[in-house]
Amino acid sequence: MNRKTHSKKIYLPEERLPKAWYNIVADMPNKPLPPLHPATKKPVGPDDLAPLFPEALIMQEVTQERYVEIPAPVREIYKIWRPSPLIRAYELEKALDTPAKIYYKYEGVSPSGSHKPNTAVAQAFYNAEEGVKKITTETGAGQWGSALSYATQLFGIELQVFMVKVSYNQKPYRKTMMNIWKASVTPSPSGITDTGRKISAEDPGNPGSLGIAISEAVEMAVNDPSTKYSLGSVLNHVLLHQTVIGLEAKAQMEQVDAYPDVVIGCFGGGSNFAGISFPFVRDKIVGGKDIRIIAVEPDSCPKLTRGQFRYDFGDTIGMTPLIPMYTLGHGFMPPAIHAGGLRYHGAGAIVSQLLNDGFIEASAVPQLESFEAGMLFARTEGIIPAPESTHAVTQTIREALKAKAEGKEITILFNLSGHGHIDLGAYEQYLSNAIDNYSVTDEEIAENLKVLDQMGFPKIEKQK
Amino acid sequence: MNRKTHSKKIYLPEERLPKAWYNIVADMPNKPLPPLHPATKKPVGPDDLAPLFPEALIMQEVTQERYVEIPAPVREIYKIWRPSPLIRAYELEKALDTPAKIYYKYEGVSPSGSHKPNTAVAQAFYNAEEGVKKITTETGAGQWGSALSYATQLFGIELQVFMVKVSYNQKPYRKTMMNIWKASVTPSPSGITDTGRKISAEDPGNPGSLGIAISEAVEMAVNDPSTKYSLGSVLNHVLLHQTVIGLEAKAQMEQVDAYPDVVIGCFGGGSNFAGISFPFVRDKIVGGKDIRIIAVEPDSCPKLTRGQFRYDFGDTIGMTPLIPMYTLGHGFMPPAIHAGGLRYHGAGAIVSQLLNDGFIEASAVPQLESFEAGMLFARTEGIIPAPESTHAVTQTIREALKAKAEGKEITILFNLSGHGHIDLGAYEQYLSNAIDNYSVTDEEIAENLKVLDQMGFPKIEKQK
Repeated sequence: MNRKTHSKKIYLPEERLPKAWYNIVADMPNKPLPPLHPATKKPVGPDDLAPLFPEALIMQEVTQERYVEIPAPVREIYKIWRPSPLIRAYELEKALDTPAKIYYKYEGVSPSGSHKPNTAVAQAFYNAEEGVKKITTETGAGQWGSALSYATQLFGIELQVFMVKVSYNQKPYRKTMMNIWKASVTPSPSGITDTGRKISAEDPGNPGSLGIAISEAVEMAVNDPSTKYSLGSVLNHVLLHQTVIGLEAKAQMEQVDAYPDVVIGCFGGGSNFAGISFPFVRDKIVGGKDIRIIAVEPDSCPKLTRGQFRYDFGDTIGMTPLIPMYTLGHGFMPPAIHAGGLRYHGAGAIVSQLLNDGFIEASAVPQLESFEAGMLFARTEGIIPAPESTHAVTQTIREALKAKAEGKEITILFNLSGHGHIDLGAYEQYLSNAIDNYSVTDEEIAENLKVLDQMGFPKIEKQK
Repeated sequence: MNRKTHSKKIYLPEERLPKAWYNIVADMPNKPLPPLHPATKKPVGPDDLAPLFPEALIMQEVTQERYVEIPAPVREIYKIWRPSPLIRAYELEKALDTPAKIYYKYEGVSPSGSHKPNTAVAQAFYNAEEGVKKITTETGAGQWGSALSYATQLFGIELQVFMVKVSYNQKPYRKTMMNIWKASVTPSPSGITDTGRKISAEDPGNPGSLGIAISEAVEMAVNDPSTKYSLGSVLNHVLLHQTVIGLEAKAQMEQVDAYPDVVIGCFGGGSNFAGISFPFVRDKIVGGKDIRIIAVEPDSCPKLTRGQFRYDFGDTIGMTPLIPMYTLGHGFMPPAIHAGGLRYHGAGAIVSQLLNDGFIEASAVPQLESFEAGMLFARTEGIIPAPESTHAVTQTIREALKAKAEGKEITILFNLSGHGHIDLGAYEQYLSNAIDNYSVTDEEIAENLKVLDQMGFPKIEKQK
């Protein structure tokens, strides 16, 4: 199929926007293991989550139903940017001189410029339905905070964002974006929670961390019955909402009689990867499709490729239940790569189970290669990718060049999860040869995992 | 027609991308007057432009043909982002509680985030066709420089951008974007031209100006036969290329059985306004349509509403031919508003003639009202507009509220010429109450126009 015979951009009509999200748990041969209480090591139930999340989201967290209806008001808001375009990367294919056909789903068209609003709008809706007046959350680089700001103001919900202090100072544009959408943004550690005040008192120069910001957001939510907390990745209900990406992509590929041999997404907590891939994982599990599904992580935060599958805390300082995850240890501190959204020590329960069961595979890419890929993409396809998304581009280029070497006409689909307009400072550093490749030693990983042994956090064996 | 019956986003299939640009000169009852030589006051001919522009563009500058074919390679590149979406502003309509139907054409989907690549790609193509190896240009805030960077690298043409020094230091992200697309960017005044060296020697702290940057770019082009110069607005061929916007918009509105009563575009040099409006001005001139067409300028740079129609220099320091334009005088220094693309003392020859002949009208908007409009738009439609584009949003809101007061179900079309992702610093200042409304006194305008009397630059009378 060549340029003359079909369009570069493939649009799905708004009336074909999916009416339900896809819940992969229904089709998994081995269901995700339950979270455990850190002290008792007993399963944590829905009731334990009630102080943090509205009931509807807790039910979605544990549901076994295959499809969960997207509420009509959420679908109406989705139509502001969805269905997002599927784009044939003709220009990239040409530059690589590859026989591979490359398609990408572009989520940068959303208000905040990434896939994050897909779940932010859904979460804001369910909170509003249950009368929640205020939500708290944490944000690192600011992608999640800005998406949730956009969503909460639509429903008249107040939002308090705890933004890691070092990012707050480095990325003023993200804070501005959150303010435009009416959120209050406080550098963390802050002066408005006990946690923040205690840490600031002990260490006045503390630059903050995602772990501290989570603690502050959770503290504020727990102390006020009309306030809930919201998370932008990792959890089952977040992954569920993101499947709208893959469902649309599948319908769009059908429109041009295409189907992927390889599906690729970058990997942080797992929500964008799950979004693009789960509907295709279903085809593999249920339909026996011969298809490779690749999660791409940074070389410097290699939980999927070099971590262990075992129970660990979801956060750095140990406030969450124990989650069954591929992990580098909750104490692992990823190097300061620019792909802030991929700097997370673990993977969600569902994705970890799928990796353990061999339905998906993982790959790790070094930072410099990811920026080279981002540059080539900007020069050919015209879109400057977010540093996170360049990881998916990198793996796509690797697969396309492999197909060229082998003379195979494969079809690749990847998710371009966001644009890099707010990340141009990172590209400037790359262009000035001022960024590092970063790597992580086996010793460093082993040391952090040893702590889990000492704490008695169970390892999980390969199942059948 | 309500939300249930048609889509929010109206896409035109790629095969319906216009095959020709529309040249309004063919339909103007009074043709635009010719540019004059500043000393002799005799018309300047195509030959005088040969050192600066390739022949094809000079021919487009003077052509009387109604349609000019878009070359196939340009159309193929356009498809990377074109046809751009036409969007029904349901959310804004609801917030204003107006009976008006509001549609906007969104040009922020282009690689550099504005309408500028529509002409940049065409100009790069014609230069490449004629063997040009290098192009020079100037840029203020950076929108034009980044668009031309994207375009020239596609054709293997080297680009030298002279960026006004104060903007170079204030807007590092725009420079990075140009570097990603392989351009050399030099703060102006620079050390690489005689003009730049002379100015720097006399005044080492000179912050630069668009006038100086133009002089440097022109000097470099004139001194090398394989180098040409490129301009991003004002000239006839630039306006011609932008008409792809309005041609698409018209076809898209036809798809939903709509036609505008009012067409609105913000106004700097005139290219984005011409782009959205000229195909509709044709309907007014040729078809006698009863339709209002409004150019929106900043209150602080009011050439259309408070300037004079007369011959003046196109640049600040007097290097260009005399152009028949609505002008505040080439010595007028617009206040430092954030809408950098609208800080120009004059209007192009075609638009000026159309205003003089009553086919279009003009409106001026204060800076604070424009940011208020931008905020409302971001909160409802989810897109943060460029500061320039907020001027079109402002006028749209004014018209929609007038329609509400009068109970009229009018249809409004405006051009959202770009996104504000690189301009969040301006929004931050607005949110901090740190921006000024700015105004310009009649005395200041009169003083600058008096200089034109002294120089003997002819006034142009109203024609029939």
